[in-house]
Amino acid sequence: MGKLVTGAAATYVEEMWVETPKRRMITPITQDVQKIITQSGITDGLVLVNPMHITASVYVNDLEYGLHEDIMDWLERVAPFGGLDGNNGAEYRHHRTGEDNGDAHLKRQLLGHQVTMPVQNGRLHLGPWEQIHYAEFDGQRRKRILVKVVGLIEE
Amino acid sequence: MGKLVTGAAATYVEEMWVETPKRRMITPITQDVQKIITQSGITDGLVLVNPMHITASVYVNDLEYGLHEDIMDWLERVAPFGGLDGNNGAEYRHHRTGEDNGDAHLKRQLLGHQVTMPVQNGRLHLGPWEQIHYAEFDGQRRKRILVKVVGLIEE
Amino acid sequence: MGKLVTGAAATYVEEMWVETPKRRMITPITQDVQKIITQSGITDGLVLVNPMHITASVYVNDLEYGLHEDIMDWLERVAPFGGLDGNNGAEYRHHRTGEDNGDAHLKRQLLGHQVTMPVQNGRLHLGPWEQIHYAEFDGQRRKRILVKVVGLIEE
Repeated sequence: MGKLVTGAAATYVEEMWVETPKRRMITPITQDVQKIITQSGITDGLVLVNPMHITASVYVNDLEYGLHEDIMDWLERVAPFGGLDGNNGAEYRHHRTGEDNGDAHLKRQLLGHQVTMPVQNGRLHLGPWEQIHYAEFDGQRRKRILVKVVGLIEE
Repeated sequence: MGKLVTGAAATYVEEMWVETPKRRMITPITQDVQKIITQSGITDGLVLVNPMHITASVYVNDLEYGLHEDIMDWLERVAPFGGLDGNNGAEYRHHRTGEDNGDAHLKRQLLGHQVTMPVQNGRLHLGPWEQIHYAEFDGQRRKRILVKVVGLIEE
Repeated sequence: MGKLVTGAAATYVEEMWVETPKRRMITPITQDVQKIITQSGITDGLVLVNPMHITASVYVNDLEYGLHEDIMDWLERVAPFGGLDGNNGAEYRHHRTGEDNGDAHLKRQLLGHQVTMPVQNGRLHLGPWEQIHYAEFDGQRRKRILVKVVGLIEE
């Protein structure tokens, strides 16, 4: 059996700033998202975690550093920095704009750009190994992650 | 600090019709989604943008035409029209049904099939380069994109 | 024109248990999700369908068994069990933990880990071929899929 909850409708939004020391880097953010949910006072609903920049992903998977490296290797294999045909990225048409981050735009789509997670009793409602991560593919500058909670507060 | 909003709970849904002139094509739809949000009267919440057909994607990335071509090239590389082993798609089992769009079903999953975006003050709450796109992989016929807004209206 | 609905805000959550007889397997779950929506009494809103384990995906695509096999072949091609360089998966760093499911963590991201679908009049609001599937990449043991409905009940 499931569980029904009713209450007053509410939303809460916060933009979290991040700046990764490396260009490509995975950072666990489950606790940051939980803090925002706690601040919101929203006890039940959904939380959207969405990078506001288009060369990064938010994803849910194991918090295991070997896997983090596997993910980065795999993304590089499938969406290489050097371009689809090698040649130092020369064939990414996006680079005609002066950018060198064509791969970052593709890696973000491959890993998945955003997640929506459940909230119950004021807490992320997670399985035993579900952890929220921020994956940066063109970092070393200040960027934002939007956290939006939509649900119920006690009346 | 974040921002809490309360109000009366409401939803709004509209099915947008699209017909792309090419079989494979990327179309920016941020303004179409914004118009539906504005019509809804919902001032805060989430908007789900979901293609109702299974050979298309809705995704968020840069509105830059070179990148659009890069994305299409990359999808073709990773999920080829001609089949995983070449041979003109002969090995897609899905083609035994008489279809020739096996690649389109895979491309949709690779790019990501849907997005959920935040709404604040009646507007999409986007980062500076976030733009919503519809990517069609088997077009030239009428299809629908569902836009569903879930959130708060003023009481 | 779209359709506006108002009502009392409510959420409903249920954890569905699954155990696939094969290690890798695709299972249609649209009807299971619909049953939970019906039980919830929520008539309008969104439903999040999220595997609580990190070696599985929930996705929406055609319920066609040839395509199911195509999807599994494609995932194996792009994120192989045997490792990115073959060699029996030896180079997945995640396997240093004693696990042998590095590929499963990657396949889940490639296919897309979760979906959020629209609900209207107490029913999933789907296009003609949209079907929800659970894709397991490391099964043969009990796992959970979280189904969370967020929306409106009649006042």
